[in-house]
Amino acid sequence: MIAQYQQSAQARVDAALEPLFQAPSKELERLYAAMRYSVMNGGKRVRPLLAYAACEAFGVPAEQANGAACAVELIHAYSLVHDDLPAMDDDDLRRGQPTTHKAFDEACAILAGDGLQSLAFSALLDARLSPQADAIRLQMVQALAKAAGPAGMVGGQAIDLGSVGVKLDQQALEYMHRHKTGALIEASVRLGALASARAEPAQLDALQVYAQAIGLAFQVQDDILDVESDTATLGKRQGADIARDKPTYPALLGLDAAKAYALELRDQALAALQGFGDNAEPLRALARYIVERRH
Amino acid sequence: MIAQYQQSAQARVDAALEPLFQAPSKELERLYAAMRYSVMNGGKRVRPLLAYAACEAFGVPAEQANGAACAVELIHAYSLVHDDLPAMDDDDLRRGQPTTHKAFDEACAILAGDGLQSLAFSALLDARLSPQADAIRLQMVQALAKAAGPAGMVGGQAIDLGSVGVKLDQQALEYMHRHKTGALIEASVRLGALASARAEPAQLDALQVYAQAIGLAFQVQDDILDVESDTATLGKRQGADIARDKPTYPALLGLDAAKAYALELRDQALAALQGFGDNAEPLRALARYIVERRH
Repeated sequence: MIAQYQQSAQARVDAALEPLFQAPSKELERLYAAMRYSVMNGGKRVRPLLAYAACEAFGVPAEQANGAACAVELIHAYSLVHDDLPAMDDDDLRRGQPTTHKAFDEACAILAGDGLQSLAFSALLDARLSPQADAIRLQMVQALAKAAGPAGMVGGQAIDLGSVGVKLDQQALEYMHRHKTGALIEASVRLGALASARAEPAQLDALQVYAQAIGLAFQVQDDILDVESDTATLGKRQGADIARDKPTYPALLGLDAAKAYALELRDQALAALQGFGDNAEPLRALARYIVERRH
Repeated sequence: MIAQYQQSAQARVDAALEPLFQAPSKELERLYAAMRYSVMNGGKRVRPLLAYAACEAFGVPAEQANGAACAVELIHAYSLVHDDLPAMDDDDLRRGQPTTHKAFDEACAILAGDGLQSLAFSALLDARLSPQADAIRLQMVQALAKAAGPAGMVGGQAIDLGSVGVKLDQQALEYMHRHKTGALIEASVRLGALASARAEPAQLDALQVYAQAIGLAFQVQDDILDVESDTATLGKRQGADIARDKPTYPALLGLDAAKAYALELRDQALAALQGFGDNAEPLRALARYIVERRH
């Protein structure tokens, strides 16, 4: 069920994203091509899926969350472009394709990332993508800015870079992940729920518990897959994080305990959705999928 | 008169900016320090000045434009941090001080720039800085996202980088500058005017003509100063743009014609303000100052 839902979410967000990369002039074609290359890469669109599923959890059609879905994917894409830069993780491949600074050049990749961040905010203000009332769109902008910014995702990347070669305990590792990947996953759910225009504060709180749990589960499973997968399956070098002495859950807890922890987080996520009916089934399916996926 | 107004605007925006750099945790202190270093550097605050002066042109106290002023300065600061990176202009000094990637490191500078962009949007949503109604704040976010993004400032930087060693004609040079520096200067005036909550569409149009003219005048004068000034006055290497074979107005038009053009643009800016009364005097003083400044 989740595979079909994922394909449908992917097709929906890709169709909404594509027109954003039309260069307004010949002079800007290369920059827009670099942005498009960085986004339209066959990505799984987990964050858009979350935004759509959160919107549908309130019985509202997923299309209402198109702006939210585009926004979180554009932030995610920009973070990967910058993360791959030589001064950061220095990755040549992403999903088996040359990273943006390899396919274009480093300056172009820096600017493409910068531009994608701006585009994310624009997507929340585009009436075709975000038809909500002003008050709701402002809440969406606010949640996105906070999640993307220095107290969120960017802060997590800074902590991550500062942790190479440092022995982190579990608390410090989770603090890093809550920022680096967790903040945007939480925002994906929150923006999707806000986009429904039906979310009560208590429901937003419950969804935040859900999102925190799956965000962490996603990371724990990523670490597990990084140990277990090979380059062909994952599209990046095997054990790359461990090779660079980055802290991981398997390294910290052992592989079996890391797997048990991922399952525990899945159960926390499912428990947080108890007040929601059948409409939240996609959110539940995703929580299960996260700890079952093989790539 | 403009010197006093500038100092007052500088003090006001610096006081509004300072609290934004309080790290929320020990782990994030270095990132916040890098962001603070990139912003709290004694900059002239031309863009905040424009936002304040545009707000006051409607008889509204400048403080109402604090969010607008912070937002445009944060975008400007982030663009300089990224522009100075080795993969871009590769500058070691900015205002006579080490650039952010020299004072910290390259990864930290990339992330600080990314974080500053997010903070700019947050500043427009902070009720203490931006007390406007939702509809107005949304217009401000929209104008900022457009001006900062790939169809604005980031696009201009991409065109600029693509023009090194290329002979641009005046039209192509102006197209580049309208994006690279013009878009954010226009946004500074527009956001300040919007912040007044009193700007009629025709007045916004007149202010855009004003902003386009001073934006271009600012760039023409910068090019002139780059030829005429020495490192001590300007805090960067003399003739750096010419040395890198970047297109400049003096190179294109000759020095005298460039100076005449700057004055013509000043007059266009002043003409656009004819419908405004004495409250627009700071905007007029700035138009005069831009072409008279020596650094």
